[in-house]
Amino acid sequence: MDVFTLCEKAKLASIRLSSTTTEQKNAWLLSIADALDNRVDEILSSNAIDMARGENLSPVMRDRLLLTRERVARISDGVRDLVSLPDPVGRVLSHHVQKDGLDITRVSVPIGVVGVIYEARPNVTVDVATLCIKSGNCVVLRGGKDAINTNRALAKVVKEALGEWSECVQFIDDETRESTGLLLKADKYVDVIIPRGGEKLKEYILQNTKIPVICSAGGVCHTYVEKTADLKKAKEIVKNAKLQRPSVCNALETLLVDEEVAEEFLPVVLSEMKAEKNIRVYGDEATKAIYPDTEIIDEEGYNTEYLDYALSVKVVSGVEEAISHINTHGTKHSDAILTEDMCKAEKFILSVDTADVYVNASTRFTDGYEFGLGAEVAISTQKLHARGPVGLNELTTYKTIIRGNGQIRK
Amino acid sequence: MDVFTLCEKAKLASIRLSSTTTEQKNAWLLSIADALDNRVDEILSSNAIDMARGENLSPVMRDRLLLTRERVARISDGVRDLVSLPDPVGRVLSHHVQKDGLDITRVSVPIGVVGVIYEARPNVTVDVATLCIKSGNCVVLRGGKDAINTNRALAKVVKEALGEWSECVQFIDDETRESTGLLLKADKYVDVIIPRGGEKLKEYILQNTKIPVICSAGGVCHTYVEKTADLKKAKEIVKNAKLQRPSVCNALETLLVDEEVAEEFLPVVLSEMKAEKNIRVYGDEATKAIYPDTEIIDEEGYNTEYLDYALSVKVVSGVEEAISHINTHGTKHSDAILTEDMCKAEKFILSVDTADVYVNASTRFTDGYEFGLGAEVAISTQKLHARGPVGLNELTTYKTIIRGNGQIRK
Repeated sequence: MDVFTLCEKAKLASIRLSSTTTEQKNAWLLSIADALDNRVDEILSSNAIDMARGENLSPVMRDRLLLTRERVARISDGVRDLVSLPDPVGRVLSHHVQKDGLDITRVSVPIGVVGVIYEARPNVTVDVATLCIKSGNCVVLRGGKDAINTNRALAKVVKEALGEWSECVQFIDDETRESTGLLLKADKYVDVIIPRGGEKLKEYILQNTKIPVICSAGGVCHTYVEKTADLKKAKEIVKNAKLQRPSVCNALETLLVDEEVAEEFLPVVLSEMKAEKNIRVYGDEATKAIYPDTEIIDEEGYNTEYLDYALSVKVVSGVEEAISHINTHGTKHSDAILTEDMCKAEKFILSVDTADVYVNASTRFTDGYEFGLGAEVAISTQKLHARGPVGLNELTTYKTIIRGNGQIRK
Repeated sequence: MDVFTLCEKAKLASIRLSSTTTEQKNAWLLSIADALDNRVDEILSSNAIDMARGENLSPVMRDRLLLTRERVARISDGVRDLVSLPDPVGRVLSHHVQKDGLDITRVSVPIGVVGVIYEARPNVTVDVATLCIKSGNCVVLRGGKDAINTNRALAKVVKEALGEWSECVQFIDDETRESTGLLLKADKYVDVIIPRGGEKLKEYILQNTKIPVICSAGGVCHTYVEKTADLKKAKEIVKNAKLQRPSVCNALETLLVDEEVAEEFLPVVLSEMKAEKNIRVYGDEATKAIYPDTEIIDEEGYNTEYLDYALSVKVVSGVEEAISHINTHGTKHSDAILTEDMCKAEKFILSVDTADVYVNASTRFTDGYEFGLGAEVAISTQKLHARGPVGLNELTTYKTIIRGNGQIRK
């Protein structure tokens, strides 16, 4: 598997692709969507091979790996949805004319070649490839070994639908770790690496590449119930943030409650969640004093991302302690304050170092669609380039065009 | 030298600094400028120690290291200039209200802690520290060992002018390589590393850190003289781009000339540059046939950044070959086409993969001031976050503020 050759082909194709029209890109997306629908049997039979090979995988993993007729239809519908989104390329980001007549325009352009390293979710193959096409980027895909047959089939469908532009999508058809290592060394051809997977994968990538990485840490998301909060609304928000889909990164992991309302608020919200989903509660002594079914944790315990029906709880003395706790234990993903005191809200907004900061709403809204940005490749918890949902605009960079008529520098 | 402790102090201070008013930041800048002026003797006597220690350095290095009364005044004037620039923090980058009433605002915020690793230019200590203060960032400075006494004195002046906010500027007072390594490992506290120095330093940094890096490769900048170019203007532009200040990254390194005008253009421009600055010419056979005083180079030779009175020249068949040459040998810094054919210009703009693409002007304009952006920390040749001049706006990231009144996700 000559990974460098694939990456070089992607780089060459990226120059051509960068100046393709919106119409052309949308036509490809529709072809891909149709091809996915028409070739669903071929895709499902490849998936059946992976499912058979993966009979020892956990039920969660098997569910992620499984494709069905309905799931393929959902993937192709997602591709069609991309057509209606605005083209992120060619936006004029700024324009001015200098005194000497130099006309300076900053315009969005594709990044070039995006390398995506992901685990066993076959939908990522299509989602990422089509987001890249819409944003004028070539993509090099390296999927997880458990899904290799499915990914190969999906990549084939996508590439064939692209016809003579098939080089824009490159698929690393290899199950060994070696090919990931080679992709990470292809800094001559690959402009950005986006990992989609667990913490270990991300750590490995950060330690082994010079290529810029758009990274998402896990989401240790907080909700702080300030003493003036509307406790009825607060209960619904906290329950939604924790229970609606606990396995995702924008779900609530740590509930902070002001000491003045802890006794009123905690027993109600925690026992309802216990009754509904048998939630486990971890917390400090003050929490246990109010809600005895609490397992005591130390400071370290507050770094936990459960992704499950479990919750850390802490009673705090006010907004200062809440902010300090979040800045110490959070992952800069999504954090909320529930309050009717807008001075406290502003203080929280200014001082919590996080991508998405909420006032009186559930952190579950952190998502490209919910923010009205369209589909997303990932949710970034780093600060450079993209912070929060990484959608089509975040898959572009910019170029400054300087038009003159003979200007020289004095 | 406990580098982690310095970085942690910077991180703690950065939370406070992020919500400081423009007036307060400008007041600090004025105090720093005044302190530099008032304490110039102290600064110059520290610089004298470095100059004495560095008697074996090259004349260029000694010139970079040297401070004089005038140079310190220029540094303090630069700090005063920052006061009049708009505050890059708190800009509303987007705002909309979703159907469900969620009010979503994207606002620029400081990045947090900026680590700057630089070589023996003492002015960087002040320039970078004050750009960071204006943009609400704390900074950890690690300067070159040849300038350690000067940098220590400058950092002391800056920190003392900040009074009880002195933790916002941290200076690593250490000459060993070890402290650089520790800074690169402080990913818990440092949000971005900006290297200012040679290729070796950048390579070392990229290979040894998980912290995002804003990186500038050297500038192998091209100017392509298309066959319809106004050759009189072209001559002035080429001479300016090459000769006005050859030691800087936006200076011309490779001249590409269309074969249809090479015989008319090259002898004039090259012999004038030879007469004026005794320029050395490196090129292909076609160039040598026209201008015999050419030393032949191979493909590899076209990767050279001379930073000197020397120039690579190549005769090309047209805009396609020019684009392909630049995309192969360029460093994505600044590249120009000189032409009266606006279709060719548009093709060049679209297809050359570079930060700053010029039509009919000298590449020497790539500079924060010349673009009307104000002072700059560096010129980025990477594609993520910042491309081209890295000014105050590029020292910010953003936060999305979601204001609701009880919204939960369905």
